[in-house]
Amino acid sequence: VKILLDVMSGDNAPLELIKGAIEAKSECNADITLIGDIDVINSISEQNGININDYGFEFVHTTEVISMEDAPLSVVREKKDSSMSVGLKMLSEGKADAFVSAGNTGALHAGSTLIVRRIKGVKKSAIGAIMPYKCPTLLMDSGANIEITPDVYLQFAQMGSVYMNKIMKIENPRVGLVNIGAERQKGTKNLVEAYGLLENAPDINFIGNVEGKDLPYGVCDVAVTDGFTGNIILKLTEGCGSMIMSRLKDVFYENLITKVASVGVKKGLKQMKKDFDSSTYGGAPLLGLSKPVIKAHGSSDAKAIKNAVKQAAYCVETSMVYEIAMMIVPELSEQNEAGCSE
Amino acid sequence: VKILLDVMSGDNAPLELIKGAIEAKSECNADITLIGDIDVINSISEQNGININDYGFEFVHTTEVISMEDAPLSVVREKKDSSMSVGLKMLSEGKADAFVSAGNTGALHAGSTLIVRRIKGVKKSAIGAIMPYKCPTLLMDSGANIEITPDVYLQFAQMGSVYMNKIMKIENPRVGLVNIGAERQKGTKNLVEAYGLLENAPDINFIGNVEGKDLPYGVCDVAVTDGFTGNIILKLTEGCGSMIMSRLKDVFYENLITKVASVGVKKGLKQMKKDFDSSTYGGAPLLGLSKPVIKAHGSSDAKAIKNAVKQAAYCVETSMVYEIAMMIVPELSEQNEAGCSE
Repeated sequence: VKILLDVMSGDNAPLELIKGAIEAKSECNADITLIGDIDVINSISEQNGININDYGFEFVHTTEVISMEDAPLSVVREKKDSSMSVGLKMLSEGKADAFVSAGNTGALHAGSTLIVRRIKGVKKSAIGAIMPYKCPTLLMDSGANIEITPDVYLQFAQMGSVYMNKIMKIENPRVGLVNIGAERQKGTKNLVEAYGLLENAPDINFIGNVEGKDLPYGVCDVAVTDGFTGNIILKLTEGCGSMIMSRLKDVFYENLITKVASVGVKKGLKQMKKDFDSSTYGGAPLLGLSKPVIKAHGSSDAKAIKNAVKQAAYCVETSMVYEIAMMIVPELSEQNEAGCSE
Repeated sequence: VKILLDVMSGDNAPLELIKGAIEAKSECNADITLIGDIDVINSISEQNGININDYGFEFVHTTEVISMEDAPLSVVREKKDSSMSVGLKMLSEGKADAFVSAGNTGALHAGSTLIVRRIKGVKKSAIGAIMPYKCPTLLMDSGANIEITPDVYLQFAQMGSVYMNKIMKIENPRVGLVNIGAERQKGTKNLVEAYGLLENAPDINFIGNVEGKDLPYGVCDVAVTDGFTGNIILKLTEGCGSMIMSRLKDVFYENLITKVASVGVKKGLKQMKKDFDSSTYGGAPLLGLSKPVIKAHGSSDAKAIKNAVKQAAYCVETSMVYEIAMMIVPELSEQNEAGCSE
């Protein structure tokens, strides 16, 4: 398995990405190619006492970097020699099996769709964020497509079910439709129609509408929604969690007694914080593409990058793309393994 | 000031509503009318040692109750003798100044719009939930209108600004547009257009787009959004909060040491829980109507009901409806105080 890693991506590039690649190398037997400015990679490695040539990495030199401020289409226009652009191109040309980046989400999604392309029959690709709820919940979509038609909700449910089954090993994943009430007639016309399609799909385990108050309790394994609502859910969950945890810190730092109290629950709080850390599950898979692409969180540290690389390798090993193609357009399955659209 | 209270509404009816009315009576000098089944009110009061005739309440006897399962329009169709329906009718006939109910939100909004009616010039009335974020944030709308046009976003911003200024005493309330990015071109076509309208409105303090991750930190005083997104935000905030607090409880209950630790931070945690309790601010005001209507939380206890009644009285005392009318259609202001549309 050959994984491409965009080492120039994210807030902690390139050091944490280099470290993450080294950690991944020791835990899985993937061939890893580091894409980025070779001079920067060498000097940062040296400064940190890393002998970068000791790990059997391949290197691809690039001169440009897609920043968080760049427009999504810059990846196919102004910055064709960026690490992201070159990585996606190599992936589309069959020079590797999967691509991992912690960079600009919009650019990664646009670039993936235009360069790597979608599986034949897939109408929209989605960014499937794994939410650290009571059970890990795949949020389909978490921001790629702000408005979608009912048939796309169904495809998101199908792709999400394949991912949670193959990669997260959940038998018969529960699919919920994010809505503002449990009853089938709730929400927009699109949602009511989507409810009907999901209900009648033979290949998914649809449990009905799910509400905002239920999501944190892990009521479903795949939460199907448009990218606008999904992005609000993704970021509000993050905001509520960090605000409450910072508030809690204030409570513990108030005086000597509270500080002593904090020692007693230190272990429990640490575990709690860990449970809310979505990077345990790697990054967000872009689903519906003809090759696996993983979006690691922008603030990823070495551990998060390691998990994202392992996750990418696992997507390849389990033929996730083929399984999605089989689910979406079973009759195309034979020609679909390498198939792409548009 | 004369306030109508739907004592048959909410999970804790009628006892907590009766108690809440008694508490409100001692803290503000409003005349309170209890609407509900007089036999039930009498027997529940007696059972709980309350001399219901000691407080100077007026009573209006009704035989029906709108349940949480009833359709929104039941309030004007099947259940015209319900406490909610009779209360709204009395309000529209000028027999009182404001109405408080903890009942079915959909029915209360539909009934208010059809019976009490909107202020002339107001296109949609909204349910303005007060979110217990770092600063209290008025979520406009929190569920009444699932899809809205750009001009309605502007009216929500205006009405919300009046409320936060007059009732919550916030000078020059900061208005944020809920979106998936800070840049003005983010989100749906409707949101981009709404951004332009908000930006050019002279009478509000528009601070731009606000994201889900920022909301809990209290970045704005009025968060403008459609009712679908608003309802997701309302319920997800509730879900995240209760899930994290229950997780925290587990941490403290684990063993003897953690139980001892919990004693040290008991006060801080109690205050923290109180800060997240939105009922401190009363209920959710229905804004845009020709008379104040307050929706108390379904699970309201006596204290929450007391606060909702006081809030209703305060809306009357500050001429909130008139102030909203002045903001929305200044040229209509003279005839607007009692004006209504549709």
